[in-house]
Amino acid sequence: MSQNPVPPNAPALPAPAAANATRSPVASADLPDGPLIDAVRLQEAIALFARERDWDQFHSPKNLAMALTAEVGELVELFQWLSEDASHRVAHDPATARRVRDEIADVLVYLVRLAAVLDVDLDEAVRSKLAANALKYPADRARGNAKKYTGL
Amino acid sequence: MSQNPVPPNAPALPAPAAANATRSPVASADLPDGPLIDAVRLQEAIALFARERDWDQFHSPKNLAMALTAEVGELVELFQWLSEDASHRVAHDPATARRVRDEIADVLVYLVRLAAVLDVDLDEAVRSKLAANALKYPADRARGNAKKYTGL
Amino acid sequence: MSQNPVPPNAPALPAPAAANATRSPVASADLPDGPLIDAVRLQEAIALFARERDWDQFHSPKNLAMALTAEVGELVELFQWLSEDASHRVAHDPATARRVRDEIADVLVYLVRLAAVLDVDLDEAVRSKLAANALKYPADRARGNAKKYTGL
Amino acid sequence: MSQNPVPPNAPALPAPAAANATRSPVASADLPDGPLIDAVRLQEAIALFARERDWDQFHSPKNLAMALTAEVGELVELFQWLSEDASHRVAHDPATARRVRDEIADVLVYLVRLAAVLDVDLDEAVRSKLAANALKYPADRARGNAKKYTGL
Repeated sequence: MSQNPVPPNAPALPAPAAANATRSPVASADLPDGPLIDAVRLQEAIALFARERDWDQFHSPKNLAMALTAEVGELVELFQWLSEDASHRVAHDPATARRVRDEIADVLVYLVRLAAVLDVDLDEAVRSKLAANALKYPADRARGNAKKYTGL
Repeated sequence: MSQNPVPPNAPALPAPAAANATRSPVASADLPDGPLIDAVRLQEAIALFARERDWDQFHSPKNLAMALTAEVGELVELFQWLSEDASHRVAHDPATARRVRDEIADVLVYLVRLAAVLDVDLDEAVRSKLAANALKYPADRARGNAKKYTGL
Repeated sequence: MSQNPVPPNAPALPAPAAANATRSPVASADLPDGPLIDAVRLQEAIALFARERDWDQFHSPKNLAMALTAEVGELVELFQWLSEDASHRVAHDPATARRVRDEIADVLVYLVRLAAVLDVDLDEAVRSKLAANALKYPADRARGNAKKYTGL
Repeated sequence: MSQNPVPPNAPALPAPAAANATRSPVASADLPDGPLIDAVRLQEAIALFARERDWDQFHSPKNLAMALTAEVGELVELFQWLSEDASHRVAHDPATARRVRDEIADVLVYLVRLAAVLDVDLDEAVRSKLAANALKYPADRARGNAKKYTGL
């Protein structure tokens, strides 16, 4: 980062709804054929788990979004006092590696559950997003730059 | 909820490191064979996207955890003023449905990127977690109850 | 909410940097004289607490923002499975009331610490924001409507 | 941080409900007399703002906790790609300094609103929390150590 940073105002892979509305055949050409992600059996396993416990009543999109938040908070807690370098080595400690794995799993479980409840196709969603991002962050202009696309 | 609620103190699918340390063959028996989730090609696509832009330097686990937080915040924003019932209907509005899809994709992209950077096997992680949760939330005792497992 | 909700896309009191850049004398007229908030002694107590433990080294704005996230996650966890009605009654249970109070305190402590480290005047910040919001959400047009100001 | 970090598992100022249940006269002795924080007029100004717009109906504790999450996400976004050093210099850029100020204000507004709706006394809450933390993090043992109190 520069001495007097202009902090990036966005994640490295954002995309406003407008940009996402259309999918770029150009960018899509960079994506492999076949699904980028397949979480169907995970969604089925979670649905069964919830159904067996009569938990569907708690799994409104609103509630699941909150549960997702709480789990991300637990994940962030593992990194909050670490330097970036140390965060790369977090898995060197077995007990911590397990905690990280477990928190990532918790976040993933709620995210795929939320997608299922809202009938969102995860593969279609990420393909659309990656395609939009490829248009918004041309490699030549975005190289080594974490600035928001609007600042490129 | 009761008139004088004892609010649930945990997500419906939590698990402390201790419980996760061992995996339950019993609970595992409930899980289908084969991967619950396969995100390898998504991780490869994201890695390529980042490499082409020389963004690996920004993708420390610490930074990715923060980016994940910011994206979850954008997802939560879509539901914050909605009733639970309305949150189920959020996808009825096409523009909103697209925003929800895009925000879910943003969260998913950073989550699988974080897992890749930390060398976490997503399928192994969710299998271990679901198995641990099956032990902690026996269907007969957890039925219709959102209480934390410690309160069951 | 309507049967086919157009979900609000923003908090009820948002404000883009542009709108905040200027402060509205009109809206300011609605604000009482004297400070809206005085947290100076809290900031001094936290600074002393950190200094006595040589914790300043951990309190970078980046780290404090992460710690704030983790605490908010713990606060959200208390409400995630509750209906809105039940969330109003959360304090009826003494043990839960204490947890809510403690989590709110944790969030507040990190927020005022972050402001202190960044030399942000909290009173000036909220005055500026409330003034900007008064311009963006005219009472007559925003009444009973949680839509984002851009949708008013 | 050590080469093989045992990452801190908790914020620097946490406290379980148990520890907070009682307040330490010893630790309290370190706190100045008089309120550490006074946000009464801010709470009144926000209450008036909401009442004038008939927004009380949206301000359930559950919804406010979500709005708080979304605002924290916007704050975190400003720091996510910055090094810790750069995060200290974030205010060197005027436009960014204003964004930081505005996001901190947004978080503060929802936090004090949530406390008001739940009838939580902010000064009492932070006094109780700081007193509990003073007991859990003795200066001599916590010095220069970001480990969770359970690991001290």
